[in-house]
Parts: sequence; C-alpha cells; structure tokens
Amino acid sequence: MIEEILQQKAKLVDEAIPKFLPITPPDEMYKAMRHLLDAGGKRLRPSALLLAAEAVGGKPENVLPAAVAVELVHNFTLIHDDIMDEADLRRGLTTVHKKWGVSSAIVAGDALYSKAFEILSCTKSEPQMLVESLELLSKTCTDICEGQWMDMNFETRKDVKEEEYMRMVEKKTAVLFATAVKMGAVLSGANREIVRALWDFGRHTGVGFQIYDDVIDLITPEEILGKAQGGDIIEGKRTLIVIHALSKGVTIDALGKSNATRSEISAAITALRESGSIDYAMNKAVGFVEEGKAALKVLPDSEAKKILIGLADYMIERKY
Amino acid sequence: MIEEILQQKAKLVDEAIPKFLPITPPDEMYKAMRHLLDAGGKRLRPSALLLAAEAVGGKPENVLPAAVAVELVHNFTLIHDDIMDEADLRRGLTTVHKKWGVSSAIVAGDALYSKAFEILSCTKSEPQMLVESLELLSKTCTDICEGQWMDMNFETRKDVKEEEYMRMVEKKTAVLFATAVKMGAVLSGANREIVRALWDFGRHTGVGFQIYDDVIDLITPEEILGKAQGGDIIEGKRTLIVIHALSKGVTIDALGKSNATRSEISAAITALRESGSIDYAMNKAVGFVEEGKAALKVLPDSEAKKILIGLADYMIERKY
Repeated sequence: MIEEILQQKAKLVDEAIPKFLPITPPDEMYKAMRHLLDAGGKRLRPSALLLAAEAVGGKPENVLPAAVAVELVHNFTLIHDDIMDEADLRRGLTTVHKKWGVSSAIVAGDALYSKAFEILSCTKSEPQMLVESLELLSKTCTDICEGQWMDMNFETRKDVKEEEYMRMVEKKTAVLFATAVKMGAVLSGANREIVRALWDFGRHTGVGFQIYDDVIDLITPEEILGKAQGGDIIEGKRTLIVIHALSKGVTIDALGKSNATRSEISAAITALRESGSIDYAMNKAVGFVEEGKAALKVLPDSEAKKILIGLADYMIERKY
Repeated sequence: MIEEILQQKAKLVDEAIPKFLPITPPDEMYKAMRHLLDAGGKRLRPSALLLAAEAVGGKPENVLPAAVAVELVHNFTLIHDDIMDEADLRRGLTTVHKKWGVSSAIVAGDALYSKAFEILSCTKSEPQMLVESLELLSKTCTDICEGQWMDMNFETRKDVKEEEYMRMVEKKTAVLFATAVKMGAVLSGANREIVRALWDFGRHTGVGFQIYDDVIDLITPEEILGKAQGGDIIEGKRTLIVIHALSKGVTIDALGKSNATRSEISAAITALRESGSIDYAMNKAVGFVEEGKAALKVLPDSEAKKILIGLADYMIERKY
C-alpha cells in the first residue's frame, strides 16, 4: 500500500528530472549526470519533500523544482562517494567513474551540484522563502561533506565511539532528509513550529534510515542490493554494527580487507549476527524512526501526514 | 601603481577569508579547504567584484561575503582541476590531492563549493537581489563544469577549432569574472544597463585573461609561475596557441607527452614562438581586453572605474 503511494510520488519526480535536467551540449556530460538518476531509485527524499508540502497545505507541483534539487544533491554525493569507495556497481549499473573515468565523474558530480542550486534558485516562490531554502541546502551540503570526511577518517581508526558515529550519520545522511521535508514546508509558507517539527522528523528518521542501510548492506544479497553484499565490511566502514561488535571484543577478520573472499565476508556477517550487533543496530534504527514520527504530532491530521508516517516505517522495512 | 591598489583590495579579501571560513571540526578538512586559499593568489575575481560595487555607488564592505564566495568557487575549481591534471604544484605549494590524497581533495573541493553558496546566501541584502546572485553563481558553476568537460574532451582531439576554444574559455574562465563584477553591481542595486555593461566587461576581459594565461604557461619560468613551465603542452591542452600552430602545420612533438624532457618542451615553445602562434594569441588577448574596457563607457567616471580599467590591463600584463 505505502509502496504504491511512494511509487506514485517517485513517478512525479522521475518525470520532472528530464524536464529540469535535459541532455544539452556537452551531451556526454549530461548523460553522465543522468546515468544514476535515470536508473530510478526510490526517490525517498524528494517524495518526502512533496509530502511535507502537502501536509502543511501547500501544492506539491509548486515545490517540484526543490524536490528535483534534493534528488540531484543526493545523486551528486553518490557519484563522488563511488569514486572514493572505488565502487564498481550502483543500483545494478556500472558506476559513473567506471564508465566515464574518474576525471569525468568528478566534473559530472560537480555539475549536478550546481544544477541543484540552479534549479532551486529558479523556483517560483517568495524570494525570502527561496533564500531560506538556498541557505538551508548549502549548509546541508557542507554538513554532508563533513560527514563524508568523518566517515573516511573513521576507516583508519579502531576506537570510533557510538556518539561519533551518530554525529557522522546525522551530517552525512540525516540532514538531507531533514532539509527535504523542511524545504517542502518552508516553500509552502508553514509556520515555525511546523517547520521545526518536520526538521526533527527528517533528522530522526534519517538517522534511522542510515543505521538500517548499514544493516541492509550485510543482510541483502547482491542481486537485490544492486551492489556487493558486505561492501561496507571490506571498505572498513565503522558502522554502528561494527562499533558495537568491536566494543564486545568480536574479531572481524574481513574488516578493511579489500581482497576478502566471499566466505570471509560470510564469516564476518555471521559473527556480527551472533554478537547481537545487527539486532542492536536494528533496535536503534526503530527507536530513531519512532522518535521522528512522534515529532509530527503538532501537524494537523491529513492524508499526507499519514503517508509521511508510512514513509518513515518504510525506511526501516524496505528490502534494499 | 595599479598593483599596489590591487594589493589593498586583495588584503581585504585575505582578511575576510578566515572570518567566513574558520577552521572548525573536522579541522583537517577545513585545513585542506584553506590550503590554497591561504597561499595567497592575486584575488582578481573578488577584487573586481568589490570594485564593481564601488563603481556603481555601492559599499564594498556590504558585498564582501559575495567576494569571498567567488574566491571560494575559484579555489574549488583549482582543487578539482589539479586532481584531473595530476598536478603536483600550485602557487608554489603541494597540491591538495598530493598532500591529503584524492578522496580528501574531492571532498575538500565539494565543501568549498557549498561554503561559497552558504556564505553568499547569508549575505545581508534584499532577498530579490540575493536570489538573482545565487541564480547567477549556480548557473556559472554549471558553465565552469561544461567548460572543464570541453577542455578535457579537446585533449583527445586533433581538430579543435578556434570557435570551440572560445566557447570553452568563455565557460571555463570568463563567466566567473563576469559573474563577479555583475554580482557586485546587482547586490549594490545598479540598473539593468549598468549590470549588463559590467557583465560584458567581465566576460571579454575574462577571455583575454585566459588566453594570456595560456601564454604565461609557455613563457614564464617555474620559479615565478609556481608550477612547471609548459605544463599545458605535456597535458596536451588545446590552447589558442596550439590550435593556431596546428592549423599552420607546425609539429609539436611534446604535445600530450607526459614524459617529455625539458629540452623537448623548450623545442615546442620555440616552435610556437617561431610560427607566430604566441604573438597571435597575445594580440587576441589584447583585443578582448580592449573590448571589455569599451563596455564600461556607460558607467559614470569614478576612481573605481579607473581601477577596473587598470585591472583589465593588468590581466594581460602580469608576469604570472
């Protein structure tokens, strides 16, 4: 049910992308920019933005450019992250840098970044609301970079604490969800209390989303995930699961071992399951999503509010 | 004389950078972001922005955040370009990716990019003017990416035409100069005719600047240039000089030969001089700067206008 509704929202975004980001010269650059975008994806961030606008009485069609902008920012981070992670696959497709080369992928990512701001700044809206949205999105992009830097830095450390992981995830993942729903509300003229509630909703559920994403990386097979199972393990990522396990004295031989075999990765996953670390993370993810949903209590009841709550639940129920 | 005045403007920008971009956690990321910024540089773009504001009757201190934003965008492109060019040196310093690694340099560049928009969006100004500036800067960043993509693409082609080079240079270099002076005028409330004149001034002189920059790469020794002499040659860059020489049937053995010796590079430079290609480019650069200066005739006479004209001349007289 919720999946069908989310598919309808995703379709709006899918249809808007070629309109706001047509293939123009240099064609090959725009094709590289559109590569992952055209592969689909769940469009959770832009859908949440459209729903937030509806939930505060706004019109989704008025905030569609902002929704596309948020999806472009998300995709820009995917392109650059894949370079850094030396990833071969994303959404079942060859990554941009594998297909076009590293230099081209850097530029294609940069161009998506500026297109996001360009599309947002061209949105028909009161200038004051637009400035607030642009300020919000730019601050969030800085946060994402800080989170990415922290994440990379963690890979070289053995002693990453849970609080540090939480700060990293908030910046790297949660603020973009929070920004999406907040922008939907700001651009629809919502009052401060409602705007704040939606920000909190996005922030908490965004943290839950990322913790669950780390769980998915371990438990979902490649054919569903669209990329290698246990990729985070061999990259040496300090996920909440790994941090919990290390604190319990669990040995994870495959951690950070780029040439680990499938059976070594399987052994690591078994160890993480048996130490209760996957359950620990799963419970945390549920807790954050519940906290996020609770923030919505100040919003008047509506169909859009119901779907937002359904979206939050979906974030920790999805299979990939 | 003009150099002294420009140094005073540069000093304003130098002092503003640590205020708008302080070193905060994660410290190392902000140090990487500040690495090239702190090395100085001529600050021609932000100085031109401050002068444009003055020339239309505005206050330079009001547009200082916009000036810093433009300098940050310029530095973001330097960090990413150095990765793509595999450059070791910039402004006499180790490049960011050589010092911190490629992944860190990608993130540091991305963060400078978002900080530029963040600083600009926080500028105290009428929202409408701010939205116009943000729209302008984001469109310009897209242009820069398109120009960079074209430039990289040219390296694999033998048949690049002068018109194609001009289009590439306009996007890669000239629009940021044009945006700088236009933003200075827009944020100071100048009328449309004046704004247009400053845009044309920046665009034409920016093209002249880049053509002259390509000349400098050939004629300036490493100890003054802060990077290897003839670097463009071994990278295979299709500069106006190279395009002219190739059209005259000149053979440039070192072109695109990354392991070319110093004497091979010297031979290439001699060949380009003897074919008249360096003089050809130099004359073109002068022509563009003159066209740019002519665009300023609609501006009322002022000290700031005089300095802008001096800045335009300086762009093709500087030694590095």
